[in-house]
Amino acid sequence: MLGMMQQRPLLLSGLIEHAAAYHGDREIVSNMVDGSMHRSNWRTVCSRAKQLANALQTLGVQPGERVATLAWNTHRHLEMYFAVSGMGSVLHTVNPRLFPEQVSYIINHAEDGYVFFDTSFASLVQAVAPQLPRVKGFVAMCTRAQMQGIDLPNLLCYEELLAAASPTYQWPTFDENTASSLCYTSGTTGNPKGVLYSHRSTMLHSWTACSADGLGLSARDSVLLVVPLFHVNAWGVPYAGAMCGAKLVLPGPGLAGENIYRLLREERCNFSLGVPTVWLGLFDYIERNQATLDLSELVLKRVVVGGSAAPRAMIEKFESLLGAYLIHAWGMSETSPLASIGNLLDKHQGLPLEQRFDLQVKQGRAIFGVEIEIFGDDGAPLPHDGKAFGDLKARGPWVAAGYYRGEGGEVLDADGWFPTGDVATLDADGFVQITDRSKDVIKSGGEWISSIDLENIAVGHPAVQEAAVIGVAHSKWQERPLLLVHAKEGQTVTREDMLAFMEGKVAKWCLPDDVVCVDSLPHTATGKLQKLKLREQFRTHRLPTDPA
Amino acid sequence: MLGMMQQRPLLLSGLIEHAAAYHGDREIVSNMVDGSMHRSNWRTVCSRAKQLANALQTLGVQPGERVATLAWNTHRHLEMYFAVSGMGSVLHTVNPRLFPEQVSYIINHAEDGYVFFDTSFASLVQAVAPQLPRVKGFVAMCTRAQMQGIDLPNLLCYEELLAAASPTYQWPTFDENTASSLCYTSGTTGNPKGVLYSHRSTMLHSWTACSADGLGLSARDSVLLVVPLFHVNAWGVPYAGAMCGAKLVLPGPGLAGENIYRLLREERCNFSLGVPTVWLGLFDYIERNQATLDLSELVLKRVVVGGSAAPRAMIEKFESLLGAYLIHAWGMSETSPLASIGNLLDKHQGLPLEQRFDLQVKQGRAIFGVEIEIFGDDGAPLPHDGKAFGDLKARGPWVAAGYYRGEGGEVLDADGWFPTGDVATLDADGFVQITDRSKDVIKSGGEWISSIDLENIAVGHPAVQEAAVIGVAHSKWQERPLLLVHAKEGQTVTREDMLAFMEGKVAKWCLPDDVVCVDSLPHTATGKLQKLKLREQFRTHRLPTDPA
Repeated sequence: MLGMMQQRPLLLSGLIEHAAAYHGDREIVSNMVDGSMHRSNWRTVCSRAKQLANALQTLGVQPGERVATLAWNTHRHLEMYFAVSGMGSVLHTVNPRLFPEQVSYIINHAEDGYVFFDTSFASLVQAVAPQLPRVKGFVAMCTRAQMQGIDLPNLLCYEELLAAASPTYQWPTFDENTASSLCYTSGTTGNPKGVLYSHRSTMLHSWTACSADGLGLSARDSVLLVVPLFHVNAWGVPYAGAMCGAKLVLPGPGLAGENIYRLLREERCNFSLGVPTVWLGLFDYIERNQATLDLSELVLKRVVVGGSAAPRAMIEKFESLLGAYLIHAWGMSETSPLASIGNLLDKHQGLPLEQRFDLQVKQGRAIFGVEIEIFGDDGAPLPHDGKAFGDLKARGPWVAAGYYRGEGGEVLDADGWFPTGDVATLDADGFVQITDRSKDVIKSGGEWISSIDLENIAVGHPAVQEAAVIGVAHSKWQERPLLLVHAKEGQTVTREDMLAFMEGKVAKWCLPDDVVCVDSLPHTATGKLQKLKLREQFRTHRLPTDPA
Repeated sequence: MLGMMQQRPLLLSGLIEHAAAYHGDREIVSNMVDGSMHRSNWRTVCSRAKQLANALQTLGVQPGERVATLAWNTHRHLEMYFAVSGMGSVLHTVNPRLFPEQVSYIINHAEDGYVFFDTSFASLVQAVAPQLPRVKGFVAMCTRAQMQGIDLPNLLCYEELLAAASPTYQWPTFDENTASSLCYTSGTTGNPKGVLYSHRSTMLHSWTACSADGLGLSARDSVLLVVPLFHVNAWGVPYAGAMCGAKLVLPGPGLAGENIYRLLREERCNFSLGVPTVWLGLFDYIERNQATLDLSELVLKRVVVGGSAAPRAMIEKFESLLGAYLIHAWGMSETSPLASIGNLLDKHQGLPLEQRFDLQVKQGRAIFGVEIEIFGDDGAPLPHDGKAFGDLKARGPWVAAGYYRGEGGEVLDADGWFPTGDVATLDADGFVQITDRSKDVIKSGGEWISSIDLENIAVGHPAVQEAAVIGVAHSKWQERPLLLVHAKEGQTVTREDMLAFMEGKVAKWCLPDDVVCVDSLPHTATGKLQKLKLREQFRTHRLPTDPA
């Protein structure tokens, strides 16, 4: 027997209509590409999104067609979020930090009809345009005057498109499972793969972001959205912000510590989200200018950090310098991304700071809607004891079922679990701690050794700039860890040095079997260590411990 | 083009599984029917719900079959919420305060297979049982020892059923639009009508309840759930509580001020929800015992009031006596019920108390997911100026599309709006203020006069116990207001008295045309004024202002 409630599809157009009607005056502040500040609000974002939808319709953009962006966080990019998805097309946010060949691969794979870009990326777009035969037009996200010098076929001006379009537009109604946006994962191996979100998945994710134990976003928040709009839908904040009417502060390209500090102060931001790198820049700025800054001007209270793990020192600095609480979150493109969030339980209230930090360094607990579990080599779930670590899998209505155009084949297992590629522990309270990537963990005689744990210890050595640990073949143990060290300029380290330094900081059987000093370590376009390349390079490395 | 996210239905069984896995130790505390306290937790609620599901299956309860409860707020009633809906059957919570003939009408109309009841309601169940030919069995929600003296056919014992059943149960998977629960509205006219909720509608409503600008429910809340589990799913708190792992304190039949105070204090409740009557009782207790009570023992911070309007004095008392914030909410059975909630906007932060109270007396703003609008006689939307008032309509995925078994016919208008039967204003910020029930508003020469406004003024007269205003026929103005006054014991009021008292407190043309003193006013089983009866009684009342 079915219930007798209204059948109204969950569509993203409902979010921007709600924001316009109930939070119309709430500001959307952008730090533009040219450094100027731009002030809009939810009412205007809605009305301009409707103009853009009309313009796209005039250009012949069809329902389901992909529209690409190469853009910073500004009001225009935000308008595109609602215009493109709202009209039933698919917003494809391309990461402009990728290598040009990746950018053209992605745009071609997605079969994007139009490419919208910020002028900062004009030369990138010009470079890849000859490889994009399917693209019908390029739209510069600026005024005509700001387009000087850009040389592209079928070049259009964003502000001219809007000026020519009516702000009257009736959002269409369709199946809530319709695709709304597309993000390619910048995997460390193989070609990027597209995650195709739906209106339904995005809407459920937004409710979670607004929930008190999600991001707790509310109408009273002023949010500095540092995480880029081209990173997994900016962690869902554009949608959640519209749902609750938060003020959004969009930093554009201005991610340097000084500018982040200025925006936090001038826009009275109490909430922010971003990857650790940005916060390192902020604290660097603060520490260099402590004598002249009045930190009490900042009202920052909560900071969500994801993307990669926040070091404990960062958690402590947010607390001690700014009185702000760092919320560690974990997720990935394939989980929309919110999967686990570091909100505390009732029993943790009033914990001594050091003990609270112990919890904060973990990646939080699964939020309702996402099931997560860790599995051993035999496919059986592992105990939640904070020690056993295994392959982390996730499932739920905002977790990917596969990749765009079937890339990667069938990705879910028989029970519907998505393998995240991370290795993690779960403690008795359900706190996740990511210990490694599945492919990077070293499998030594049936036991797993975390490469990241060893790297974290190695970089504690005062002479070490960066460290990487990979598994290499061992005749008795199958694999044993090899530590690769890049020393700080003008410094040297030796094998004996490093092993002596690490001894006692990790179980003896986990210590690296060998240490090699290198001049540099390879990275991906997004700054991740390319361990695949290292594994190839050191495939034949002979470990001194190998009896064979 | 459809998105590529996982298709996992939103089922209520997911809530209790999440609560058991992630908040297993979080307490569920019940004040039992016999006055004793009972302590359980989410893990045990889940495991006992599974036992109950197995027991119901053994009894032959089918998917879609209705199972009735006549019960207080206790852990057993909470277990039923998850067991019955989780197994795909429909939980039908019957209001035991209804007249016996209404109770039997509702149980027969719903075609309930089993009736579960607290021993407090044994005599009610015994009285109606002969009128319930379809009911296959009655289950006393207690131990065998507590069943002494209950005389019913096919009488079963709740604790015996559970003891005989396995706690191993695999919740079934089905369409998220499947019916989950059923509540009959206690309308003031006609037979009660059933609102049939679905898993989907309840789940979306739960996310809203957990959202920061909904009820803001979190894992750190200890919630005194005063609103009965038989009132619109207890405003969704059992589900939302499982979603976030809140501690629930269930007061059973102990709703007197003294017991509410004790529970707030002993269980350190920071959050509560209930109708105004209960809070009047609490403040009465506090004021009578102020000399001996240490109010600083209470940690109450937020109180949600709905069902009927909270008087301003109550808002002030929560603030001044307890330092607690009263959140006014509006909704009804047909809206699940959360539709508007009195959370403040950023611009209201730091408002002087008196101005904040001005906002708090309103019924809050529409939450995302529910659209609300006010319409005039001609069906056109009215301005949102806080003055124009019209028929309040609502639509959204947790708003009813019709009533169980088609009662009341087609209830939505052509645009999908559900007429709430309330008359309201909306201000520029979207705050709702209910001014009257549609059928009670007095339509005077094209203008509407709120009966409630006049009643509120009239009860301000020191000699007035209760007042009712109805429209009676007028040859020139179609309808004009008639004030019916029930004076306090030993006091009298006159027509001239009342009119003089009211003059200047309302626009002159809104003043009642006549005043009649009565010995009592008629009420429904749930304590609402029966204006229909009054209109019948005074249909031929001749107004002194009528020239005809």
